[in-house]
Amino acid sequence: MLITLTTDFGDSDHFVGAMKGVISGIAPRARIVDITHHIPPYEIREAAFTVAEASRWFPKGTVHVAVVDPGVGTTRRPILVEAAGQRYIGPDNGIFSMIFERSPHKVRVISNAKVMLKHVSRTFHGRDVFAPAAAHLARGVLPGAFGKLITDYVRGSFAAPAQTAADTWIATILKTDRFGNLITNLHIERFADLRTRPFELQIGSEVVRRLALTYGDSEIGELAAIVGSSGFLEISANQASAAQRLGCGAGAPVELRIFVA
Amino acid sequence: MLITLTTDFGDSDHFVGAMKGVISGIAPRARIVDITHHIPPYEIREAAFTVAEASRWFPKGTVHVAVVDPGVGTTRRPILVEAAGQRYIGPDNGIFSMIFERSPHKVRVISNAKVMLKHVSRTFHGRDVFAPAAAHLARGVLPGAFGKLITDYVRGSFAAPAQTAADTWIATILKTDRFGNLITNLHIERFADLRTRPFELQIGSEVVRRLALTYGDSEIGELAAIVGSSGFLEISANQASAAQRLGCGAGAPVELRIFVA
Amino acid sequence: MLITLTTDFGDSDHFVGAMKGVISGIAPRARIVDITHHIPPYEIREAAFTVAEASRWFPKGTVHVAVVDPGVGTTRRPILVEAAGQRYIGPDNGIFSMIFERSPHKVRVISNAKVMLKHVSRTFHGRDVFAPAAAHLARGVLPGAFGKLITDYVRGSFAAPAQTAADTWIATILKTDRFGNLITNLHIERFADLRTRPFELQIGSEVVRRLALTYGDSEIGELAAIVGSSGFLEISANQASAAQRLGCGAGAPVELRIFVA
Repeated sequence: MLITLTTDFGDSDHFVGAMKGVISGIAPRARIVDITHHIPPYEIREAAFTVAEASRWFPKGTVHVAVVDPGVGTTRRPILVEAAGQRYIGPDNGIFSMIFERSPHKVRVISNAKVMLKHVSRTFHGRDVFAPAAAHLARGVLPGAFGKLITDYVRGSFAAPAQTAADTWIATILKTDRFGNLITNLHIERFADLRTRPFELQIGSEVVRRLALTYGDSEIGELAAIVGSSGFLEISANQASAAQRLGCGAGAPVELRIFVA
Repeated sequence: MLITLTTDFGDSDHFVGAMKGVISGIAPRARIVDITHHIPPYEIREAAFTVAEASRWFPKGTVHVAVVDPGVGTTRRPILVEAAGQRYIGPDNGIFSMIFERSPHKVRVISNAKVMLKHVSRTFHGRDVFAPAAAHLARGVLPGAFGKLITDYVRGSFAAPAQTAADTWIATILKTDRFGNLITNLHIERFADLRTRPFELQIGSEVVRRLALTYGDSEIGELAAIVGSSGFLEISANQASAAQRLGCGAGAPVELRIFVA
Repeated sequence: MLITLTTDFGDSDHFVGAMKGVISGIAPRARIVDITHHIPPYEIREAAFTVAEASRWFPKGTVHVAVVDPGVGTTRRPILVEAAGQRYIGPDNGIFSMIFERSPHKVRVISNAKVMLKHVSRTFHGRDVFAPAAAHLARGVLPGAFGKLITDYVRGSFAAPAQTAADTWIATILKTDRFGNLITNLHIERFADLRTRPFELQIGSEVVRRLALTYGDSEIGELAAIVGSSGFLEISANQASAAQRLGCGAGAPVELRIFVA
């Protein structure tokens, strides 16, 4: 049984180790896989992209824990999501928005104290609520035992681009990857026209008009759009950082215009 | 059987991989869990806090390897510690001070060459001594086979605050966490009065007088004390870095005065 | 069955998580061990050193995946290498040069589509080619089923120092480690004379003439050569960064002269 972890805890502290200890105590046979602990602090948008994109490659039944949780200790609820054969556990703050956007899903509030640690601190629900809930789920406790189905869970506005005219959309940069590629929330399945029609992607004062097939398929340093491995459109610069060149990152708006030939 | 790793090796080099390879060769069924490899180079104080705090969440019998070892290749001894059902392996340089402070414990020098690699280098005992010793311990070799009990092991002065007057203690910052919270060596169990009496925590030229219940329980950027998830008092700034604001970090002194009402 | 991962993907993105998901889906019992994901982008030389050095400590039969792949999506081939009881999977771009230098080896092109994902993207062969190939290999698919033996695979010029006179070699810095030690491609087995004869290692305008036995065996900050835990000669500065002091890193040339007594 697999449990993945996606957090903004970094990897310099004891936080992730404590979560792994709690999981190992409850579900000794669970195998724990780190997705990343380097979501920038409080960056729910980037966590939402990362957990959605990584989780879809895992075997059915995997439990994915995502903790970017500025509201820890307040009234925000812990939730359990079932979607596309995967299970997700984390705070109800929009962190699963890209999952909700993509697949039919069921969402439950986690209210059963038996799936949490006996003492729940006010500051570290990753250890006291999310890790033990994931371990109990991995051990076979049924989703229904965690709490009631809810429909008023949080969806982030970043989940999909907003159409502002017949040919125009305002999209958002979801994250900057390690290589400086800017990943937008424009998915090629929804915007398949990009492959065949002229378009303009405006970001800051720059306009990108070319769809490259590979990162190496441009002049060194040249800006181009590319369909990333996730299916989302990225703005990249061959062997250079598009983020640095454009001076922008997660949260930046991108305007897309597609021209009818 | 679980083996955890806490080191200052970073995660960019082959060091950690070599340790994992050695462990896997000796104890193929052991599961290796990274706590962190980002202890700042040579920062024994921070390693001591991290391994103590992470390890207490693991199932009994887990083997915790901690390697921050500026004295590698000199006469400092390798040790095996048993405390609170956990086992610890590392250099005798104070790295287990917070364990010694917290629990009854037994300490042995590791002198049996059979639990080490055949060739022990002068520069990498993580691979040649500590990793194989941990793997043999995880496989079931009894602690008594590693070497004799000792009592003259090293305890760091940072393990507990020093009382300087009836109402005054000099404490130490053990580490700065990812969010810039400054973790002190003042444990709430020993200083329960902080919950009910007026106090002053002086750090540099700033004085903190308020105990917040959650990180979100202050104005944005306001300094407050908080009982961290580890039970140690932290100095935090809501959604900001207290370390940056105060310009200090691990090793900085903190003066605590508690006033009788 | 063990599968190790060495990449330049960093640990902030979904890339490594996606690879782990693919592996877990094909080989649910495989245990995945991270060597490092912090090879600097496109730094094949450093990846070559790291995978060679870490892999030799693993049990025979381990599958080592190394992905630093600026040529992804072009005609560069995926390869499977067998050497010294270990198996390696990655791009044919010199990333296994240090393995080739050290041991007899067999190299195959990976051409069988059955060991890849059904849809192979142009931008992420780590997920679509190398991860599934490693998982199939770990599950027991025989090397011969992956593709034909080849002999025209790429060897990097950095694999060994070049002799320029009877007593002179031009070596290369393979990488800077976490502590700022500069690891050269001068292996002590080939240059055993360094232990007994006077020598000069020239790097930039500085000359090192002393072989230290341990990192602590010098004045604080003093430059010395040392035989690192890998057997390669390193230039180090006791408790300081030689890389910073010398202002150089991977790729820098080093001239070695050994004097006949």
